[in-house]
Amino acid sequence: MKTYINPPLSDWTELTKRPTKEAQDLQALVLDVFNEIQTNKDQALIDFTEKFDQVKIEKLAVSVDEIEEAKSLISEDLKQAIQLAASNIEKFHTAQREEINVIETTKGVNCWRESRGIENVGIYIPGGTAPLFSTTLMLGIPANLASCKNIILCTPPNKKGKIHPAILYTANLIGIEKIYKVGGIQAIGALTFGTETIQKVDKIFGPGNQYVTAAKQVAQNFGVAIDMPAGPSEVLVIADETSVPKYVAADLLSQAEHGSDSQVILLTNNEQTLNETIIELESQLAVLPRAEFAAKALENSRGIVLNSIDECLSFSNIYAPEHLIFACESAENYIPKIINAGSVFLGNYSCESAGDYASGTNHTLPTNGYAKNYSGVSFDSFIKKITFQKLSAEGIQNIGPAIELMAEAEELFAHKNAVSLRLLDLRNKISQS
Amino acid sequence: MKTYINPPLSDWTELTKRPTKEAQDLQALVLDVFNEIQTNKDQALIDFTEKFDQVKIEKLAVSVDEIEEAKSLISEDLKQAIQLAASNIEKFHTAQREEINVIETTKGVNCWRESRGIENVGIYIPGGTAPLFSTTLMLGIPANLASCKNIILCTPPNKKGKIHPAILYTANLIGIEKIYKVGGIQAIGALTFGTETIQKVDKIFGPGNQYVTAAKQVAQNFGVAIDMPAGPSEVLVIADETSVPKYVAADLLSQAEHGSDSQVILLTNNEQTLNETIIELESQLAVLPRAEFAAKALENSRGIVLNSIDECLSFSNIYAPEHLIFACESAENYIPKIINAGSVFLGNYSCESAGDYASGTNHTLPTNGYAKNYSGVSFDSFIKKITFQKLSAEGIQNIGPAIELMAEAEELFAHKNAVSLRLLDLRNKISQS
Repeated sequence: MKTYINPPLSDWTELTKRPTKEAQDLQALVLDVFNEIQTNKDQALIDFTEKFDQVKIEKLAVSVDEIEEAKSLISEDLKQAIQLAASNIEKFHTAQREEINVIETTKGVNCWRESRGIENVGIYIPGGTAPLFSTTLMLGIPANLASCKNIILCTPPNKKGKIHPAILYTANLIGIEKIYKVGGIQAIGALTFGTETIQKVDKIFGPGNQYVTAAKQVAQNFGVAIDMPAGPSEVLVIADETSVPKYVAADLLSQAEHGSDSQVILLTNNEQTLNETIIELESQLAVLPRAEFAAKALENSRGIVLNSIDECLSFSNIYAPEHLIFACESAENYIPKIINAGSVFLGNYSCESAGDYASGTNHTLPTNGYAKNYSGVSFDSFIKKITFQKLSAEGIQNIGPAIELMAEAEELFAHKNAVSLRLLDLRNKISQS
Repeated sequence: MKTYINPPLSDWTELTKRPTKEAQDLQALVLDVFNEIQTNKDQALIDFTEKFDQVKIEKLAVSVDEIEEAKSLISEDLKQAIQLAASNIEKFHTAQREEINVIETTKGVNCWRESRGIENVGIYIPGGTAPLFSTTLMLGIPANLASCKNIILCTPPNKKGKIHPAILYTANLIGIEKIYKVGGIQAIGALTFGTETIQKVDKIFGPGNQYVTAAKQVAQNFGVAIDMPAGPSEVLVIADETSVPKYVAADLLSQAEHGSDSQVILLTNNEQTLNETIIELESQLAVLPRAEFAAKALENSRGIVLNSIDECLSFSNIYAPEHLIFACESAENYIPKIINAGSVFLGNYSCESAGDYASGTNHTLPTNGYAKNYSGVSFDSFIKKITFQKLSAEGIQNIGPAIELMAEAEELFAHKNAVSLRLLDLRNKISQS
């Protein structure tokens, strides 16, 4: 971890930058794979899985037998843990549903919004270095709550052609029935165009490596929506003398272990807190199974002493972290000053792992500074809101003349006429009665 | 208007397609303009405005004098009309604000969301064939309600280097101070990268021609968010024997006049309604100033008789119209069956013009089938929702063991350790007391 003591404001632009990664242009590769999938469909998926994942699968769909087998492989303790997490995630996301609220903007003019689940959604669960069954909960539960009609889950098979049993158990627990063994660019292609087996969807969710991310971005050009642009995971911790350096170090490491491209930042108004945290980092790192990833990520990371907690918050708002752990006892007093962040963890007991797994908040969050302009995944991500309006005769009479004037000023005379015809009829009706 | 009587289901795929437009690849042009703006900033904007808009401007920023002049050019009647529209839009969008709702998912685990306005937003108001000052209201009012810190408005100057006074009056009315004379790709480039005069933004809103649309799409690769992908405007009307053919025709024409690439569709369970509407279309078209556009759009348009209103709704949900006018007396009974639409207008008095200008709903809506996966612009479009969580000692003790199990199963031991350290301290504390 590189450390900085009271760096001048002129250095902040550099200090709030993410580590630059080589921008490998994957668009051409993605388009090749997409073309092949449009032509050869299922067969293309099977071929690409053999080529990219080095496994020859016979059936894309996971069978009922495979799910039953997975259930038998998961311990009762883990099942209960997953059920607790599912219950909390469901509670938090259920509360995000909105009641219909009819607003009479002018007498006789009623306007409201109603939510509808996006009908067909695709959920991508990465394979890779960790079997992220928790992401199945984070995406599947709000999709269910939104009454999405078709929920399609894709995840890459391992070298034996299998899916990790925890992913299958979790998907089954929350009622996802359409599970396919396909990953990478080819999974995103299948969800974008559809094949004989896998249905085309309207929106694709889920994290992934650089290939999946590139494929999701290209998919947008084919009419599919995506949850958000993705990048490596990151955490920013704000600590002071009321923080526990041991916890701060553990939280920094739990982000750093995600991958060597993860970034962690510690801001503090107290040099001693920084020094103690660094000592803790070293001793905890030594015993971590994924120490190699974490050590690499720490090289990209920064520990910065600033003049005050207010200054730490200013820095954090410029950086716009995916996760902000505000490990100070007074954290709650500063909430109104938090402007850009994906998810915020307050105090000494709110570790990032809580939100990653079981507190109920979603862990699919904007990275790479996108917390400035994107929200994390929520119930909202799985719905559209349709506006409705109903004008009575009185309503159109009340706002009709204003519409006529505005339409005329915009030189849109058919817009005006649609109102004029109705107003004329209503005037005639009154004069006749 | 082409007409179809009870087309078989097998024809629906074709009938719900948009008119194919030649997919002109503008990406290379956009990237050229963007490069130039990154290098030469303001000067590039002035040069491109001379090249593309054929006008040499001296100052990009609209001056206070120009705004004062604009105010004097707008009639009192139009001012009052705009004020009524602004008031209704403000009422409807204010009601979209959410109260903070703290959910205790498990005892001691409190989770909630808070909204923050996106700090820097760009609003694009097209020049082109109609001065769309109404769009200034539709984008500027929710941006204000969301407390966006910087609202930057770009709109192309006319051949005299001026902005239409109604756009300036409207922007000034709602307190937008940063107004710049720049349109097209160069406006989107300025908002994406920033120049000496125009500030870089986090999200770009607003409709535009194919150049603006292409530029917004490319801008996304440079970290900017956009409101939604855009395409030509469209309306689908569902009518039965309770509808007034004269109104239906007027509503179809008010969409058709937008441009020759607009599309209008009429669905009915009643052949007579179709025939009477077609007669009305012809007579109303004859007297329209923008008849040329409208006539062209009608060539792409369809009048379809189906067996029932339910069948009309099935068709409409596949088409996913930007505007759905449900011009039947019984429309409200069918609301739960409306799944895909941008904005819905119910009954004989709810013409699309009402929502375009003054009822209070937003008129920036998903086109081209995107109503399947996108909502229209709303208050939500100008905010991010940040999740917060605060766990007490009791909270982490309640969910900590589940987190430990799940983290271990995902092979993320630093995630587990962040919890274990805290649980151990709490156990020691209890045993000491």
